[in-house]
Amino acid sequence: MNIDLIEAAARRFAGVGRRTPLLASPDLDRIAGRPVLVKAECLQHTGSFKFRGGWAALTALPAAARAKGVIAYSSGNHAQGVALAAARHGAPAVIVMPSDAPSVKIDNTRALGAEVVLYDRAAEDREAIGKAIAEARGLTLIRPYDEPEVIAGQGTCGLEIAEDAATEGITAATVLTPCGGGGLTSGVALALAARAPGMQVRPVEPEGFDDTRRSLAAGRIERNAGAGGSICDAIVTPAPGTLTFPIMARLCGPGIAVSDDEALRAMALAFARLRIVLEPGGAVALAAALFHGAEIDAPALIAVASGGNVDPAVFRLALDRHGGG
Amino acid sequence: MNIDLIEAAARRFAGVGRRTPLLASPDLDRIAGRPVLVKAECLQHTGSFKFRGGWAALTALPAAARAKGVIAYSSGNHAQGVALAAARHGAPAVIVMPSDAPSVKIDNTRALGAEVVLYDRAAEDREAIGKAIAEARGLTLIRPYDEPEVIAGQGTCGLEIAEDAATEGITAATVLTPCGGGGLTSGVALALAARAPGMQVRPVEPEGFDDTRRSLAAGRIERNAGAGGSICDAIVTPAPGTLTFPIMARLCGPGIAVSDDEALRAMALAFARLRIVLEPGGAVALAAALFHGAEIDAPALIAVASGGNVDPAVFRLALDRHGGG
Repeated sequence: MNIDLIEAAARRFAGVGRRTPLLASPDLDRIAGRPVLVKAECLQHTGSFKFRGGWAALTALPAAARAKGVIAYSSGNHAQGVALAAARHGAPAVIVMPSDAPSVKIDNTRALGAEVVLYDRAAEDREAIGKAIAEARGLTLIRPYDEPEVIAGQGTCGLEIAEDAATEGITAATVLTPCGGGGLTSGVALALAARAPGMQVRPVEPEGFDDTRRSLAAGRIERNAGAGGSICDAIVTPAPGTLTFPIMARLCGPGIAVSDDEALRAMALAFARLRIVLEPGGAVALAAALFHGAEIDAPALIAVASGGNVDPAVFRLALDRHGGG
Repeated sequence: MNIDLIEAAARRFAGVGRRTPLLASPDLDRIAGRPVLVKAECLQHTGSFKFRGGWAALTALPAAARAKGVIAYSSGNHAQGVALAAARHGAPAVIVMPSDAPSVKIDNTRALGAEVVLYDRAAEDREAIGKAIAEARGLTLIRPYDEPEVIAGQGTCGLEIAEDAATEGITAATVLTPCGGGGLTSGVALALAARAPGMQVRPVEPEGFDDTRRSLAAGRIERNAGAGGSICDAIVTPAPGTLTFPIMARLCGPGIAVSDDEALRAMALAFARLRIVLEPGGAVALAAALFHGAEIDAPALIAVASGGNVDPAVFRLALDRHGGG
């Protein structure tokens, strides 16, 4: 993994993906006590940064393998990213999703033309299911994070942050990333280490699913106790990846854990102050920027708002509890 | 009014305002039966396009007049646009707002440092109130639409549409604009007539407050019967302006009127498919694109999503009724 792979992914992404804006609001700056920039990946195609990695992986495949088709397992955002990338290439896509994934994500994945295979998150192993179908049908497995091209694709988000923050006059900052398996976090960290050395990435997770925070503190991969139970479905993974963890250990600052309620409050503030729709897992980095400032020593904060695929009932919960900010 | 004034406003806006993205979703294309691009002005500073006109007006004032301060009357979006433009110049701003404006708009205007004067929309005349305070305090009145520099500022939105749609390969389209007094509509129409002659603007209004639609049909300015009663507070004005109407009569196609429920449904679809927050008045153009296609003969549609300053209760209503799309 190096910056060349990320820049190659960025060249393949140009004109296909959306260069998402860095948003800001004086009210958020006031709450955080310093400038806060929000990288609005909820505005990316399919509503999350995952299209970056999906596109990078599909475009890196040999044409023959791509034509046979791809398979992915995902709680929903990687699913849509891979499904759209496959559809744009006319390639078949099978997506293995937990049966309790938000229905908006299951519906959107099907609407993108993918075949969805549901499994029981508590009883079954998605990696084993994915592998079995891949072998039976000759599909290429696109892993959600432990895959160099996927990490490179997510890293394109970091290249944009480096360039666009510099335009706003910000070159020294802590960059907060929602962290599941670490694909986004490690990709952005690699990009910034090369292109914005004054910025350091810190992964953000939900309380109780802070495997990366604990792994970084321990210096070795630690696993979560449970497999579900957070509203931050997008970033609940068993453990950081074997490719992503060493990158994060080398480049990232300590992890931060936020509560589900802090994620909901960040969603309400993003609604009222930035006019964007975030899902809970996509709002944890903003929550850390706004409510965990005491843990962060930096003149400016950049929060990646990684996704906005949220069921209306969960969004209403955020508005009900936190009244639009 | 000509294109030079708009291009001068665009030069003064560069590096200050946000170049808002043109968003799209395959689901919206499917509903409309053709490509739909959404100009997300809800992502503009202050949450609506009105900062464009406010900035253009403030920067066009002689320094001495600007230092004395400005006054504006507004249901809330022009208020915030002028308040932010004044604050960035260190100039005092007084904003005359109806007492029934959404509280999010009143709060935001105050948070931007403006002095807010409330009036009764049914019983009092905001123009008379504005004039009286302006004279008493030596403030310059910044009209919400019947003001050349404000029209020029809103026209910068049209310049961006022309450029960014061409990048997407779209040069022939109907451009739908939410329409109150006609500042946005006439500014965008002037910009497109000069820079994208294959595009025609059509103003969109709420049913029952379709003064511009009726005026365009009659060839003379017609007024609305009532002063309130639509949830589309941002675009309920008594009549098109004396400056804006002749521009619209010369350049625009027929007006379109949408129901409040169609506006709410467009908000729910923008939430689920574009991950942006729209207010009802900011969603009427998207509603026309999605639900009034039979009235529109064009290969592609561009809807200006003009604002996203919505009270949480109204947003919940959209989600409750239309379930996120």
